[in-house]
Amino acid sequence: MEVTRELAKFVTRTSFEDLPADVITMGKKCLLNWLGVAIGACKHPSVDMAISVAKEVGDRKEATVFGREEKLDVFFASLVNGMSSHIFDFDDTHLETVIHPTGPVAPVAFALGEKFELSGREVLLSFILGAEVELRVGKTVYPAHYDVGWHITSTAGTFGAAAAAGRLLDLDEDQMVMALGLAATQASGLREMFGTMTKPFHVGKAAMNGLLSATLAKRGFTSSKAGIEAKRGFASVTASNFDLSKAIAGLGNDYELMRNAFKPYACGVVSHPVIDAAIKLRNEYNIKPEEVKELNFRVNPLVTELTGKTEPVTGLEGKFSSYHSAAVSLIDGQASVAQYSDDKVIDPLVVAMRRKVNFREEKGIRKDECFCTAVLKDGKEVDIHIDHALGSIECPMSQKDLENKFRALTESVIPLEQTNKWIEQVKNIEAWKNCAQVIASITK
Amino acid sequence: MEVTRELAKFVTRTSFEDLPADVITMGKKCLLNWLGVAIGACKHPSVDMAISVAKEVGDRKEATVFGREEKLDVFFASLVNGMSSHIFDFDDTHLETVIHPTGPVAPVAFALGEKFELSGREVLLSFILGAEVELRVGKTVYPAHYDVGWHITSTAGTFGAAAAAGRLLDLDEDQMVMALGLAATQASGLREMFGTMTKPFHVGKAAMNGLLSATLAKRGFTSSKAGIEAKRGFASVTASNFDLSKAIAGLGNDYELMRNAFKPYACGVVSHPVIDAAIKLRNEYNIKPEEVKELNFRVNPLVTELTGKTEPVTGLEGKFSSYHSAAVSLIDGQASVAQYSDDKVIDPLVVAMRRKVNFREEKGIRKDECFCTAVLKDGKEVDIHIDHALGSIECPMSQKDLENKFRALTESVIPLEQTNKWIEQVKNIEAWKNCAQVIASITK
Repeated sequence: MEVTRELAKFVTRTSFEDLPADVITMGKKCLLNWLGVAIGACKHPSVDMAISVAKEVGDRKEATVFGREEKLDVFFASLVNGMSSHIFDFDDTHLETVIHPTGPVAPVAFALGEKFELSGREVLLSFILGAEVELRVGKTVYPAHYDVGWHITSTAGTFGAAAAAGRLLDLDEDQMVMALGLAATQASGLREMFGTMTKPFHVGKAAMNGLLSATLAKRGFTSSKAGIEAKRGFASVTASNFDLSKAIAGLGNDYELMRNAFKPYACGVVSHPVIDAAIKLRNEYNIKPEEVKELNFRVNPLVTELTGKTEPVTGLEGKFSSYHSAAVSLIDGQASVAQYSDDKVIDPLVVAMRRKVNFREEKGIRKDECFCTAVLKDGKEVDIHIDHALGSIECPMSQKDLENKFRALTESVIPLEQTNKWIEQVKNIEAWKNCAQVIASITK
Repeated sequence: MEVTRELAKFVTRTSFEDLPADVITMGKKCLLNWLGVAIGACKHPSVDMAISVAKEVGDRKEATVFGREEKLDVFFASLVNGMSSHIFDFDDTHLETVIHPTGPVAPVAFALGEKFELSGREVLLSFILGAEVELRVGKTVYPAHYDVGWHITSTAGTFGAAAAAGRLLDLDEDQMVMALGLAATQASGLREMFGTMTKPFHVGKAAMNGLLSATLAKRGFTSSKAGIEAKRGFASVTASNFDLSKAIAGLGNDYELMRNAFKPYACGVVSHPVIDAAIKLRNEYNIKPEEVKELNFRVNPLVTELTGKTEPVTGLEGKFSSYHSAAVSLIDGQASVAQYSDDKVIDPLVVAMRRKVNFREEKGIRKDECFCTAVLKDGKEVDIHIDHALGSIECPMSQKDLENKFRALTESVIPLEQTNKWIEQVKNIEAWKNCAQVIASITK
């Protein structure tokens, strides 16, 4: 099965007109969500470090570091923007493979779009094709590849970045095969690095390596014609078990990207139905913390097992406390990065509220489900049932939800006017005639 | 076993004075041999491609591309010089692990030495320490790692480059641990790429990735503290079987680099005793091709199995013909890159000579051994026995042999005066006060 060539054909031959409407909509959601998480984390110390290395190498100002003043060459811009988008662990997730698909691909598409003044359609198309290659390479080797210890977003992401870059650099089919071969040989990233700055670095490095692959292939660089499927190719070297048919089954008709999901809240997914219920009490029933006597949840046993910390004292501990998550989201109406700061977790109002929260475990309740009864001081009771948490496949985040997430992530980083422009512009990216001009008009 | 930390201790604590004299001598031989193969291949089209990418990223002129006019930033100089040194497959080999140790490490040491105007002692020391880390990481995972399909020079080389760079950037022990973690997570390179431009690219990319690892670690970037030995670290993810004790047994006393070997001839190693015999006939017995009636060899069966092509028509086929190798080396007195050009293989004088060559296989003859009887037209016979081929551990190439190899590789690329200066200067690299000045004085 010549899967490397089939993927190259798909990437070089698919036009914007071939894309189903729902895939285009999903693609734009991915880009908005991605920009939000990238801008949100763009001031992290690890980003400063990477930018300082970039400045040692050169001083091209070709592509924007989103959320910051700096512009870098396309290679380091891809590294830095890819990195920052994964720092909060708040980017999108293809649930079947646990790949965060947008991280390694979008930065390359934006960087080349800005450098070469391409249209928004070209950027969006290349992103969708790149993400599709990434997810299909990932499906081919998952789960053996992930289980042994590869950070699959990093490894599969290298292919996605190469494909997106190759499309924007206008590679022919043979060159695209070479680019995927160069991606295969550079794919790396160990799960051992989780919990350190190196985890988000993987995502940026995958972007940069993929771009390098396509850039060399454009010049005639030679590589294997079967980088994925060969006896000593990517699949067999990095996975004890793999299924090449997954790389190409339904390719061009059934887009894996449609099975991508967005995280509404900046904590582990088991707390999400609890947060949904608290936000509903606040927004739909107008319940204020001082009115509440008790907040009684019935939940899947995993909720208390994984997030059962009753008295968290740091932001990180707050992520492992559904008590904190319920309290803070009843008060703030959201559970974004700011709700898991060290200060927020010891805020007396939040602490007082979380002490009114109770959990009862019931095996019959699904992981994305919960029941909640708010007992108010005036004796009233309000019952809430969350059937599927927001962000699940059954209850995906809407455009509005993603816009709120974007606002929460960017409000402390860029001016409100810029936030509004990003939201408006990404919704209409197909209409951009020239990426460089649009990005300049937003960030000026 | 905290092997990552033990290696970091070794690299940060070993001083030039700690190095045994024979290791210093070996280190200098490695650098001379490496410079020769790098300069020899520096005009290859793949090098042009890589340089053109480098110029897209920036225009720093910090480090020399050996053999060429261009200077590049240290990252791309490491990429390009590492690549060119492996293009001819004529670099050094650590026989136990089949690692070509100098390729990924020397370019980083030279580039930083030139950029920061360091001394020759610092460059030589960092190279030796980096190569030692590389070889020990390689020994830890060999052979399972290589057998499954990893290009071990590329993977282990990333650690070596990180160690050398880390030493020259003056990392402390904790930073060096982080640098090795960053190397672990970037280590890649598939054997599937052999036979394409991507194989030598691996060597350069390992150099560049290692340098990036150390550069980030210097700034405080965090990574795993156990990048090599952790459950999901480099060893266990990339090898079904590994032995961590090999990373540190005898570290600092027993230098693996002493088991490094140099290739005297630009073809597969099985032809080497045959070439030795032919050169001996020419140089010691003054035998000319027109005097020869027959050249009868008795050899190990692998010679005809692997290099039994009787009528090669291209340079590449010539490498797989011990008939050609014997003939051309009897005529030219060497078997360097020029002896395997397309023109040389169809040169009528060479063709006539190779038709007088005969092989008889004998199982009792070792692979690095051969017997040869030259039957001359005047009836005389000359018998030669090569006990161990030149370049084997038992019969290593001397400084003089390496100088001749260097000359043969560089004569058509750089002026003779430069060749002479390189040979003289590398022999005395410990005396260099300032690498930038010395390199400038040679290449000006």
